[in-house]
Amino acid sequence: MSQTLRERLLNELDTIVLIDPHTHIDPHQPAARTLADILGYHYYTELAHSAGMLRSDVEEPDLAPREKVRRLVAHLEPLQNTIQYSWLIDIARSFFGFADEHVTRDNWEGLYDAAQRTLSATDWPQQVLRRSGLEAVLLTNDFDDPLEGWDTSVYVPCLRTDDLVFRLHEPAVGQRLAAVTGVDLASPRALREALARLFTRFTARHARACAISLPPGFTPIPICASRAETAWDAICRAPQQCGEDERQTLAHFVFWTLAELCADFQLPFDLMIGVHRGVYRGGVYQGQDLYDSRVSLIQYGELFNAFPQVTFPVSVLASVANQELTSYAWIFPNVVTSGHWWYSNTPAYIEHDLAARL
Amino acid sequence: MSQTLRERLLNELDTIVLIDPHTHIDPHQPAARTLADILGYHYYTELAHSAGMLRSDVEEPDLAPREKVRRLVAHLEPLQNTIQYSWLIDIARSFFGFADEHVTRDNWEGLYDAAQRTLSATDWPQQVLRRSGLEAVLLTNDFDDPLEGWDTSVYVPCLRTDDLVFRLHEPAVGQRLAAVTGVDLASPRALREALARLFTRFTARHARACAISLPPGFTPIPICASRAETAWDAICRAPQQCGEDERQTLAHFVFWTLAELCADFQLPFDLMIGVHRGVYRGGVYQGQDLYDSRVSLIQYGELFNAFPQVTFPVSVLASVANQELTSYAWIFPNVVTSGHWWYSNTPAYIEHDLAARL
Amino acid sequence: MSQTLRERLLNELDTIVLIDPHTHIDPHQPAARTLADILGYHYYTELAHSAGMLRSDVEEPDLAPREKVRRLVAHLEPLQNTIQYSWLIDIARSFFGFADEHVTRDNWEGLYDAAQRTLSATDWPQQVLRRSGLEAVLLTNDFDDPLEGWDTSVYVPCLRTDDLVFRLHEPAVGQRLAAVTGVDLASPRALREALARLFTRFTARHARACAISLPPGFTPIPICASRAETAWDAICRAPQQCGEDERQTLAHFVFWTLAELCADFQLPFDLMIGVHRGVYRGGVYQGQDLYDSRVSLIQYGELFNAFPQVTFPVSVLASVANQELTSYAWIFPNVVTSGHWWYSNTPAYIEHDLAARL
Repeated sequence: MSQTLRERLLNELDTIVLIDPHTHIDPHQPAARTLADILGYHYYTELAHSAGMLRSDVEEPDLAPREKVRRLVAHLEPLQNTIQYSWLIDIARSFFGFADEHVTRDNWEGLYDAAQRTLSATDWPQQVLRRSGLEAVLLTNDFDDPLEGWDTSVYVPCLRTDDLVFRLHEPAVGQRLAAVTGVDLASPRALREALARLFTRFTARHARACAISLPPGFTPIPICASRAETAWDAICRAPQQCGEDERQTLAHFVFWTLAELCADFQLPFDLMIGVHRGVYRGGVYQGQDLYDSRVSLIQYGELFNAFPQVTFPVSVLASVANQELTSYAWIFPNVVTSGHWWYSNTPAYIEHDLAARL
Repeated sequence: MSQTLRERLLNELDTIVLIDPHTHIDPHQPAARTLADILGYHYYTELAHSAGMLRSDVEEPDLAPREKVRRLVAHLEPLQNTIQYSWLIDIARSFFGFADEHVTRDNWEGLYDAAQRTLSATDWPQQVLRRSGLEAVLLTNDFDDPLEGWDTSVYVPCLRTDDLVFRLHEPAVGQRLAAVTGVDLASPRALREALARLFTRFTARHARACAISLPPGFTPIPICASRAETAWDAICRAPQQCGEDERQTLAHFVFWTLAELCADFQLPFDLMIGVHRGVYRGGVYQGQDLYDSRVSLIQYGELFNAFPQVTFPVSVLASVANQELTSYAWIFPNVVTSGHWWYSNTPAYIEHDLAARL
Repeated sequence: MSQTLRERLLNELDTIVLIDPHTHIDPHQPAARTLADILGYHYYTELAHSAGMLRSDVEEPDLAPREKVRRLVAHLEPLQNTIQYSWLIDIARSFFGFADEHVTRDNWEGLYDAAQRTLSATDWPQQVLRRSGLEAVLLTNDFDDPLEGWDTSVYVPCLRTDDLVFRLHEPAVGQRLAAVTGVDLASPRALREALARLFTRFTARHARACAISLPPGFTPIPICASRAETAWDAICRAPQQCGEDERQTLAHFVFWTLAELCADFQLPFDLMIGVHRGVYRGGVYQGQDLYDSRVSLIQYGELFNAFPQVTFPVSVLASVANQELTSYAWIFPNVVTSGHWWYSNTPAYIEHDLAARL
């Protein structure tokens, strides 16, 4: 791509005001408070750890922000050829007036203090949205998030459902669901009622999507009522002893029910397909997951056929799955491409249809 | 790639007169009769459907060509950033004198009429071949196609064998095979005789290839005579009740027999590997198929070893399989790269060896 | 990439003096003796064979080098558009003063003689290392290689372990291991002792890596002592009759033991993941292998977790696995990217950490 074409494309992109369809932002504290919130993000901690920094160096309890930055900066040099590092420098220059080529042991304190002055401004969260060309961001909300205390037209709730689909066999998760919905989870029918109440509560608070991340082997299928009951009974009787089979039946039942509720409540169902959780057990916070290239969207064919009225924004984590995703979006009217996993390092963009609904 | 290099490559490509190794052209009516034959091709109908057009809008029985184009044009706008749309504009400009930037609700009738004048020329099929740099095209012929009534040196027959390999357990397919060959299909030996007669008839009509599309999980293996007999007997006795096992055995037997006949009759065996048929059940005509990236040519290793005298032009549908295909073509003398699936949007080209045989 | 950027990158690369982490060089005869040693390499023989040359033409016993080159040159024309051919021309120009555009039936004898004059220089092996910017190369040594008779600081030993992991159920391999270590292989414990003696001997001779190539389906797991004993007993009692299960158990036991010894002896463990051996049975020497794209590094997750103190330089054979490898190297401190398989045609490079250890 020629330099001229690049500039033309980037200039056009700059004119677009975006809605970010997937963030982990805390709406009560949406912007960084210190440079440690930026440099302490897993984009940097996992690279620094991979290049030799001890996990305990940045995960020490009650570590002061300034000290955290000091320790991370000591491990930045091997990261200077990464795109993440270039983003750090861009952020430092664009927002904090940084003028040097690199952040080093010798100049980081000046940067830290400059950042502090900028980040302390009362309207900083509004400033950073405006300067980033963002008019709103979708959050990642636990199903029992109270959803109170912020402007939901800017920080838009999104019902994240990994716990419901993959961990409802754990008594603690069931108790949380019962507590927040007031439903006695005696049967799959009651489960469905509890899930429906979540949708009612979330949409009343202007939620715009239901979302989930899925392991590479998952293949959604409908579960008949009697099979769901047998599995749920076994899990309720002896949660510790129930087998993989019951857990999977429950996962399939809950997933399919969520898709039905997305249809009923006219919410898009965001699918982030292909993640293995906790692969590197010694990894830093949020730096333990990896993906698997051996995944195909054919696993979701029945789902896409069964719910033509539900929009499925789909992200695939492996770049090798991109062509399949493009083809599915081209063939299925209800499948749209989405994309936001950090291993790909490609900026997220919001699909037109989803933006129009917000 | 620099603009200069692009132009140099395109100019060189323009000098080549091609034989297209795979088309679905009707040799009795080889060129478009109206603009509806072009815009009604699945390249456009599936994109328009994915962008919101109802399938019934273009698949209404007895829909007049002009009305079909009117309806499709109403859904072209969201397609303006696709390569398929740019091909449409190129065709309109190159062949029909179209001068506008876009085809819209306001100008399509002029284009329709201009196309009509051009397409009505008696020698239009010859003109379009010549202007496209094509000296011949291979067809896709059912095994019971009479192969009569056209110039087979320009519209070259190709024996398409999907029905024989994957649907011979259906009584209707067996009856068609018996009818066209005059063979009583009482045994696998008789089956082989019937297939041989197809090859005799097709090669007598100048067929230059045997071809098949294959699902991603297919792995060719030879089937011993007794196993083939057991399976065939079970299928003939009770076609509705026979199991997946018998059907697969029959598929493997027929496929391997076709490879043997390719060797006997010196025909290349075109393999189009990786398609799932009918994934999107609500899709438009020819817009229901998708592919699966999880495929490897190792599945064909035994076949390539067993038939060194047969040339296998291979297409893989997923771009991620291209490197494997290149490597197999590099290692196996009898494997050659081919390529022509629309999801890749790369023009087909004919392998030198195959062109030389024609 | 612009021409200027390419040149800048290539000039920077030219300044680096490398250690090649993987070669099949014979340290007793490290450089080519005639042009036949270059043109007879499988990079050229497999392409020439795929383009029509008979295997027997180049694998005839006692074939004279000049005659071998004559026969290969006769099949070079169809290879002129390959990167391998361009390397041949580059070698001919850079080292042998070749001035023509192509090597043909008419000019090859001049090139052969020119090469002969250059290759006969007593210090040619040193010259070619210096002019190639190489200070050392790692070898591929059988476990019973005597490792005597060369400068191991330039031709660095590397313990290749494919035979130990995948063929120890063959009595001949066990006998070689017993002979070279002096250990009676009566039990898995004795096996471990024998393997440890190999590590002692190799590291005493300055070996810098343990290496292995692995089929795509291999997933390392630890084997408990009693299961290892059962399998080893069955194999020792009746090596011909033991089943796939015992062989796999033995392979897993040996592989995991090698990882433990890499930890004990502080050797990196080079993993070359994804090769199918002997796919094309009629192929030329070293031209029979292919790979499988359907592989994931998740198969190695437990290994990487279990041995944080071992560095694993990993090569993946399919380009589609590159993104996974990059991500694993980014997340796991002990995983580093390596790369050297000819189907990718990308030059090998040595990971910094490994280079520092040498």
